[in-house]
Amino acid sequence: MAPSVAPNSQPRQVLLVECPDQRGLVHNITGVLLRHQCNVTSNHEFVDADANRFFMRTEFTGEVNAAAVVEETKSLLPDGGIARLAKTGKRRVVLLASKEHHCLADLLVRHAFNELNAEVVAVISNHDALRPLVEKFGLPFHHLSHEGLSREEHEAAVTSLLDTLQPEWLVLAKYMRVLSTKFVARYAQRMVNIHHSFLPAFVGAKPYQQAFERGVKVIGATAHFVTEQLDEGPIILQQVIPVDHTRSAADMAQAGRDVEQIVLSRALKLVFEDRVFLSGNRTIIFD
Amino acid sequence: MAPSVAPNSQPRQVLLVECPDQRGLVHNITGVLLRHQCNVTSNHEFVDADANRFFMRTEFTGEVNAAAVVEETKSLLPDGGIARLAKTGKRRVVLLASKEHHCLADLLVRHAFNELNAEVVAVISNHDALRPLVEKFGLPFHHLSHEGLSREEHEAAVTSLLDTLQPEWLVLAKYMRVLSTKFVARYAQRMVNIHHSFLPAFVGAKPYQQAFERGVKVIGATAHFVTEQLDEGPIILQQVIPVDHTRSAADMAQAGRDVEQIVLSRALKLVFEDRVFLSGNRTIIFD
Amino acid sequence: MAPSVAPNSQPRQVLLVECPDQRGLVHNITGVLLRHQCNVTSNHEFVDADANRFFMRTEFTGEVNAAAVVEETKSLLPDGGIARLAKTGKRRVVLLASKEHHCLADLLVRHAFNELNAEVVAVISNHDALRPLVEKFGLPFHHLSHEGLSREEHEAAVTSLLDTLQPEWLVLAKYMRVLSTKFVARYAQRMVNIHHSFLPAFVGAKPYQQAFERGVKVIGATAHFVTEQLDEGPIILQQVIPVDHTRSAADMAQAGRDVEQIVLSRALKLVFEDRVFLSGNRTIIFD
Amino acid sequence: MAPSVAPNSQPRQVLLVECPDQRGLVHNITGVLLRHQCNVTSNHEFVDADANRFFMRTEFTGEVNAAAVVEETKSLLPDGGIARLAKTGKRRVVLLASKEHHCLADLLVRHAFNELNAEVVAVISNHDALRPLVEKFGLPFHHLSHEGLSREEHEAAVTSLLDTLQPEWLVLAKYMRVLSTKFVARYAQRMVNIHHSFLPAFVGAKPYQQAFERGVKVIGATAHFVTEQLDEGPIILQQVIPVDHTRSAADMAQAGRDVEQIVLSRALKLVFEDRVFLSGNRTIIFD
Repeated sequence: MAPSVAPNSQPRQVLLVECPDQRGLVHNITGVLLRHQCNVTSNHEFVDADANRFFMRTEFTGEVNAAAVVEETKSLLPDGGIARLAKTGKRRVVLLASKEHHCLADLLVRHAFNELNAEVVAVISNHDALRPLVEKFGLPFHHLSHEGLSREEHEAAVTSLLDTLQPEWLVLAKYMRVLSTKFVARYAQRMVNIHHSFLPAFVGAKPYQQAFERGVKVIGATAHFVTEQLDEGPIILQQVIPVDHTRSAADMAQAGRDVEQIVLSRALKLVFEDRVFLSGNRTIIFD
Repeated sequence: MAPSVAPNSQPRQVLLVECPDQRGLVHNITGVLLRHQCNVTSNHEFVDADANRFFMRTEFTGEVNAAAVVEETKSLLPDGGIARLAKTGKRRVVLLASKEHHCLADLLVRHAFNELNAEVVAVISNHDALRPLVEKFGLPFHHLSHEGLSREEHEAAVTSLLDTLQPEWLVLAKYMRVLSTKFVARYAQRMVNIHHSFLPAFVGAKPYQQAFERGVKVIGATAHFVTEQLDEGPIILQQVIPVDHTRSAADMAQAGRDVEQIVLSRALKLVFEDRVFLSGNRTIIFD
Repeated sequence: MAPSVAPNSQPRQVLLVECPDQRGLVHNITGVLLRHQCNVTSNHEFVDADANRFFMRTEFTGEVNAAAVVEETKSLLPDGGIARLAKTGKRRVVLLASKEHHCLADLLVRHAFNELNAEVVAVISNHDALRPLVEKFGLPFHHLSHEGLSREEHEAAVTSLLDTLQPEWLVLAKYMRVLSTKFVARYAQRMVNIHHSFLPAFVGAKPYQQAFERGVKVIGATAHFVTEQLDEGPIILQQVIPVDHTRSAADMAQAGRDVEQIVLSRALKLVFEDRVFLSGNRTIIFD
Repeated sequence: MAPSVAPNSQPRQVLLVECPDQRGLVHNITGVLLRHQCNVTSNHEFVDADANRFFMRTEFTGEVNAAAVVEETKSLLPDGGIARLAKTGKRRVVLLASKEHHCLADLLVRHAFNELNAEVVAVISNHDALRPLVEKFGLPFHHLSHEGLSREEHEAAVTSLLDTLQPEWLVLAKYMRVLSTKFVARYAQRMVNIHHSFLPAFVGAKPYQQAFERGVKVIGATAHFVTEQLDEGPIILQQVIPVDHTRSAADMAQAGRDVEQIVLSRALKLVFEDRVFLSGNRTIIFD
């Protein structure tokens, strides 16, 4: 499990590369970095052999013409290759929540103390319950109730607000709305969700009640990208904690909240530091 | 998580009680123990409020008329109540395996060093591969091949052998045969299985390949009683270990084997010390 | 590991008993509860055989003369036995902090959402850094700087303030001051601390730097009662997370903060629900 | 946590490099591999910034003049740089044990099923207790009693036997003898030990009794290289499991054995696949 990395106060660039795999990629890319006298402070590469796909993440410092580094790198990659610099500033983020506070509160604290490489520009909720919490932290809280609206109408309201907020990332911090395919497509690969997880999985309503009745011995949480299959998107992080027969369904739900909070914060830290690549339905995580 | 309990060499009795819950049960049962001058060394009780069912496990020593303790206890319980002494000697056990050695080997070692409160009377396998391992430990190995036999015929052969072996418990130590309802019913509540577990669960063939393709971040194992719904029986123990994108499907399978081995041994230790009660599809574990 | 228990909204009483062990205690105490028609919803007992000491915690509901229950129970205990009802309302708590926010923030959030069975009446700090955080949550923040003061003088100021606040519990949420024996004695068994923990332990300054240089593979945290031997008091909860060679000392410190935050909150939940007994330098935890 | 890697049956070479860090190392080394048309299947590099030291491990396949790869690589490294090919066959290993079987048995099983990349050529013990276990697995068991011998005399006997066995690695699988500086120096960086670990650490006799009396909530194990400071050598792997107040000192010891067994096997798998580098008193682990 990847513990959080403390923010590095040094100015640095992060080069991100992905492309079909071929021989010599590491040699060629490090050649570009060398010619430009980049001071490489951290380097990760991985080949997804099944997908025949190469991934690389390189942190470097120095007085470097970073745009030229990217252009030269790109010119060395096979067709369809991608090379880019990670954004140097913080990620622009909107949080979506409903009534449960635990994930949202943990993110607000970490945001307030600058632990997330993110600027939370607003919180949107279909309930008004978490307004006092959000306003404690001096952030805009938008209550967009779903009451009396069709899914389409409610999502249109959310989308319209998001259009003015222009976030790079959406985080579903226990946002308990089923999302339409259209909404998901609009924020493809830019939306992270947290989901309770059990062994085995339970489908349908009241999952903790089902978990209790099944007598599970671990309660888990999964942070994942949201794709059209909703809870089936690429997994970023998973963690579990043990429970036993003395726990009621409500106890299990509380245990689940504790682990959800931890897993979502850690997953976002990885995402907002550009440590997560997608390879089909899998994630490659350079931590 | 339940760490193993060291074998206690002192002679002791274990009283096991379960019945519909009602007021005064603990008082009344401890009254019996007190009148008989039992020296209670460990006591657990639990009420499954949903099922309105009471469970109690009491270890005691002393020169006691244990049969009378049981009779008096029983007389105080509501209709349908059960009071019994746990068998004082070791459990008579048959292990069933196929080709994978990891769970079987760990059990054979623990058995050889007297860590399981069990006497393994034989190992039955539908393959011959593990014969050398079993014979190292001086135990009978019965190869009952399923080749050319219907499920019914193969199970008849296994059942026939089991009838001569007369085990109290069957342990499926990676026995890779689907069992018929009839077979399961015959050993209801006396058969323990170990099963790989993922978040989410994967149905169908090659689960580790599916887990790999899904990019799961934890690999788990579940030890459970076998019921008609096969892998849906009451859970005794679950545990997971983390994996990451660098692990192949084969790596994940190896990681899974390591956790299966640990989980099965610990679960059996609990079962063979009469620490596991069933309450519907849940287990109550007094550890 | 004990997951958090969800707050139970039902009115209930908690009877707490400890005394030298002798035969019949459970029978006798449950007899009192039965005669008073208490509806026992949860019951734990434990005998510390080494210390020959008996501990019991019983939750019950019903229209009961609780004071009489306590008196009758007490009359049945051996000399030196203690029987009492847990306070029914929330615990009155003062938090002490220095500059690090992580434990304090988690507690403030859980307090704000009523998850701790505690009323935080104030935060005291020897630095002013966390004032904005505390004031977000509408709580009094007292900055009692230690600058220019002897330990004795500073503690006198803290003690004087505590005398007006009259807390039942002090929580050292990363309060980075060495406490005098006198101060510790004043709040004996009423003060909980959180401490980083390593395998092996490191004495002296910069523990994370030492842990890094030693190449440890796990980073842990211990919540414990504060006794004269400072970090040697009875342990309530411990937990670790894995780290590897890629983590700097700063990374390890961040990982440590994440686990400290979790461990302190869970430990306090146990303490404030009267689930923790002391037996010499050990804790008995009825969770 | 490092799950085990399944043995890869493909023929492959492993290039191991370490040297003072300087710019261009990855580029230059990958250049050599490229010119020789090595098919790189896995590549890890790490810079220990504090020690200014570079480490690299590269697996490759192909019809390659591996000796030339090494020579060219070496020629590109700064003074004091080391480049070598890992031995392609299994490591030649002697296991040392005393009376406890748990670690030894797990290693013997894994060895028998070819999971360790090691050939165990013998087991040496200062007691005769484990002879039956070892002989089950058809391995030579040498009982070298320490009774009536000085440490020097006993070690001389062990050393003399080791001289005939010529192992590459010594594994102390619960070998309960304090080793002399001379013995340790003789097998410097080639000897792995497993050691119980607690938070906090306990010095002196009966550590589990001390852990029990201190009421620890986790029990751990550390696998490490043996250096002159005995239990202070570079750490390879650490893991813990939770315990609670219901566990006796004997229970804690059993829990400790379970975790020791797992940790030692995993650590040796890493070591015998040349995944572990030493950087001062730290390990760099490419898993």
